[in-house]
Amino acid sequence: MPSLLALHPRLIGLFLATPLRRHSSLSPLSRRLTFPISAAAARRQSSAASTQSLDTTPNDSPRSGRSGSLSSPPVHDSPQRIDVNPPKGTRDFPPEEMRLRNWLFDNFREVSRLFGFEEVDFPVLESEALYIRKAGEEIRDQLYCFEDRGNRRVALRPELTPSLARLVMQKGKSVSLPLKWFAVGQCWRYERMTRGRRREHYQWNMDIIGVPGVTAEAELISSIVTFFKRMGITSSDVGFKVSSRKVLQEVLTCYAIPENLFGKVCIIIDKMEKIPMDEIKKELKAAELSEEAIKELLQVLSVKSLAQLEEKLGAAGEAIGDLKELFSLAEKFGFSEWIQFDAAVVRGLAYYTGIVFEGFDREGKLRAICGGGRYDQLLSTFGGDNVPACGFGFGDAVIIELLKEKGLLPELSPLVENIVCSLDHTLQGAAAAVATILRERGQSVDLVLENKPLKWVFKRAARINARRLILVGSSEWQKGMVGVKILSTGEQYEIKVDELK
Amino acid sequence: MPSLLALHPRLIGLFLATPLRRHSSLSPLSRRLTFPISAAAARRQSSAASTQSLDTTPNDSPRSGRSGSLSSPPVHDSPQRIDVNPPKGTRDFPPEEMRLRNWLFDNFREVSRLFGFEEVDFPVLESEALYIRKAGEEIRDQLYCFEDRGNRRVALRPELTPSLARLVMQKGKSVSLPLKWFAVGQCWRYERMTRGRRREHYQWNMDIIGVPGVTAEAELISSIVTFFKRMGITSSDVGFKVSSRKVLQEVLTCYAIPENLFGKVCIIIDKMEKIPMDEIKKELKAAELSEEAIKELLQVLSVKSLAQLEEKLGAAGEAIGDLKELFSLAEKFGFSEWIQFDAAVVRGLAYYTGIVFEGFDREGKLRAICGGGRYDQLLSTFGGDNVPACGFGFGDAVIIELLKEKGLLPELSPLVENIVCSLDHTLQGAAAAVATILRERGQSVDLVLENKPLKWVFKRAARINARRLILVGSSEWQKGMVGVKILSTGEQYEIKVDELK
Repeated sequence: MPSLLALHPRLIGLFLATPLRRHSSLSPLSRRLTFPISAAAARRQSSAASTQSLDTTPNDSPRSGRSGSLSSPPVHDSPQRIDVNPPKGTRDFPPEEMRLRNWLFDNFREVSRLFGFEEVDFPVLESEALYIRKAGEEIRDQLYCFEDRGNRRVALRPELTPSLARLVMQKGKSVSLPLKWFAVGQCWRYERMTRGRRREHYQWNMDIIGVPGVTAEAELISSIVTFFKRMGITSSDVGFKVSSRKVLQEVLTCYAIPENLFGKVCIIIDKMEKIPMDEIKKELKAAELSEEAIKELLQVLSVKSLAQLEEKLGAAGEAIGDLKELFSLAEKFGFSEWIQFDAAVVRGLAYYTGIVFEGFDREGKLRAICGGGRYDQLLSTFGGDNVPACGFGFGDAVIIELLKEKGLLPELSPLVENIVCSLDHTLQGAAAAVATILRERGQSVDLVLENKPLKWVFKRAARINARRLILVGSSEWQKGMVGVKILSTGEQYEIKVDELK
Repeated sequence: MPSLLALHPRLIGLFLATPLRRHSSLSPLSRRLTFPISAAAARRQSSAASTQSLDTTPNDSPRSGRSGSLSSPPVHDSPQRIDVNPPKGTRDFPPEEMRLRNWLFDNFREVSRLFGFEEVDFPVLESEALYIRKAGEEIRDQLYCFEDRGNRRVALRPELTPSLARLVMQKGKSVSLPLKWFAVGQCWRYERMTRGRRREHYQWNMDIIGVPGVTAEAELISSIVTFFKRMGITSSDVGFKVSSRKVLQEVLTCYAIPENLFGKVCIIIDKMEKIPMDEIKKELKAAELSEEAIKELLQVLSVKSLAQLEEKLGAAGEAIGDLKELFSLAEKFGFSEWIQFDAAVVRGLAYYTGIVFEGFDREGKLRAICGGGRYDQLLSTFGGDNVPACGFGFGDAVIIELLKEKGLLPELSPLVENIVCSLDHTLQGAAAAVATILRERGQSVDLVLENKPLKWVFKRAARINARRLILVGSSEWQKGMVGVKILSTGEQYEIKVDELK
């Protein structure tokens, strides 16, 4: 075996790094994905890096330049160093972050599959018109919009639901209702980076199109609960606040407030936890609600039990009927302990018309984890026929923050079954042949592509968690054999290449 | 069992449609994904639809409006119908297209895994500066670029490699070379829609960072060959044209042509198959190459064998050395019959420096299927240190066209294990409970969310390919039992809910 002294100077440096420790600690990864707390830190780091972007040293580690066979002097006369960070508010996904993202998305997909939903997707760039609603939503103010080279107004999608509605309209009668569709897609918002928020996130959506009854909403909440349970999250960690927009609707009708103000009022109400009550009142007044209507509205919104609500609105209304049925179904589905009535929940999108719900952490540290509801009239606002519909959006940011808080983030390591290495340069082709055979048998192989000292190979094997090292040496190869080392046990043997499994 | 007469009028319409036939035929799906031939058709369809976008009928099927419980009259006073098509040059992925996309991407991922590559991703929106190279590439002319609301020049990424280079620079010394990274990401180009081309496609990239020798290129080609084999594509369907930019480099050096013209010359040469030779010559002249140099260049480019090339350039050069080694490795890897030398291959990106390759269909009907090469100086043009690197891009369009041509597109049906249905409305909660139990046992369940006639349920079961129908009826439920029907055999029995597996 080659001695340590045979190591290339750069490679010694690699060994002195501590890749295993780096991979077992999840903090750099969670710092990336978390939101809002740690995104602020990432932003600070990012802006610090931008100011250095003309330096020759990267922001995250001082670096003295590569030497030896792995590099050669730059050919161009010292070009300006680009900003190595992704655009403000966006993320790269290096392998460790990508493993986490894949793990999360795989769970989204697996839960959707358990519920019999089919996956769909839409363009990340949509016509701006799809998002121009007149209710004063935050989502519209934050539209990541552009004029394209053909002078069309386009936007990076801020949410998936309008695209889904567009596709349902396009499909028309060619699809059989109900549709149960899910999507996992990137959504964008353009906002000043003052609150440590990112400008993009991924969102898991599940939607049921064509079912008017609240069994649909119950099914959706059940799927989110199933997801939480898979994560190890319990009903003492997380709950759902549930209400219905029909509660507000009934109050507004009572005060003869025009129907076209409904969306606007909902959007104002949705800000209650963010801005002072005086402001809310002012905005409601500006929307031409009477003092009396505002008073009644705010009183109803403070109601926290269905019994109390029934006292206020009477037992006959749709709001009470829907909510009672949902709570009854929750028992059968088995998620009663996860949900609670809260009249103050209205959600921030103008198009909801019935049940609305919001997942929250019971410690109250984080923003909403997910949210959804019924939107029976979205298609008609797009000029289509009304089709009953409901759905939810579940972002990739707050859940990661929560899992981190609860110590539930998994340790995800790279995992390769074999590392294959030739003992000298002339056997590189033989090693390639062995790798090909193993891959044809479905085994993953990290093929060592250069002539490297064994010490280096063992380090790499540890870093990628290889199960087995396969060494192609001259005398064994002449007999059609290779050396095998099981890395967990240290067991070593020779085997015919044909017998490798 | 309820009679057919009990069916809702709309539901009868659903039965008369032929969902099974629709799902077993792949033509609508492949028409969407294919390119360039069928994209033209899709474009025609799309523009035809746009002209109708103010009608109340969708483009793909006349529709008489929904009736009964599934709809209610629009609340808003007939708003303008939005354009139901995705923006020009982009695609929706309804379930059938999404299944195909997932199947394709799963194969990309599985091959990458077999080769020990780790997945990464980058923002789809990048700083425009990342793509501003001065060699006159088509990719720059077609940049999908904008000014964002903060007056920054940004672009939807036209390719993944610059982002990868940026991330490698950002990581600096914190990563151990070699890196073997892959990505599957959407890329955008803005071009006039005259050639039936789409403005977005997905691209599978594999890159090896830190390996100077051509074993890296051999490994990359081997992975693409592995992918083709999984698809059922053979070396009589597809081949790789291989050359090295060093061939041109050596000719240019011979004629003392300045190194900074190299990229530009390559881009001109790359157009040889697209524009007349006179134009090529004119452009080369405009780049200040002498008549003699142009003549020699074009002569070398017509060379189709390594032996001939060796005659021209001599045996000592790097171009010949690299190419010979690659062809020798190809034998060991087992893909000799897939590759052929062709001096005319240079690829259309300015940053390639060594081996370049291009996958093509041997019938010559399609554009390049994939392409790649070595780009040892890309990081230094970004102001970083040189790091040896190579990689390839493999789009999702041409491969689908090829698979369709060869009859190799799979039939991908929706697949749900169970469909669970209550026999009357009061048992909806019981059906939900059964669905929950099955899902907890890992079984996928399509829960019928409304009270529907059995006939409807059977049709739906067939459409989603359910294996088993579970009926929750009153008398069985009182005994803790449900009815089961195995849909492939017609076998029927009752079983305790606890014993359902």
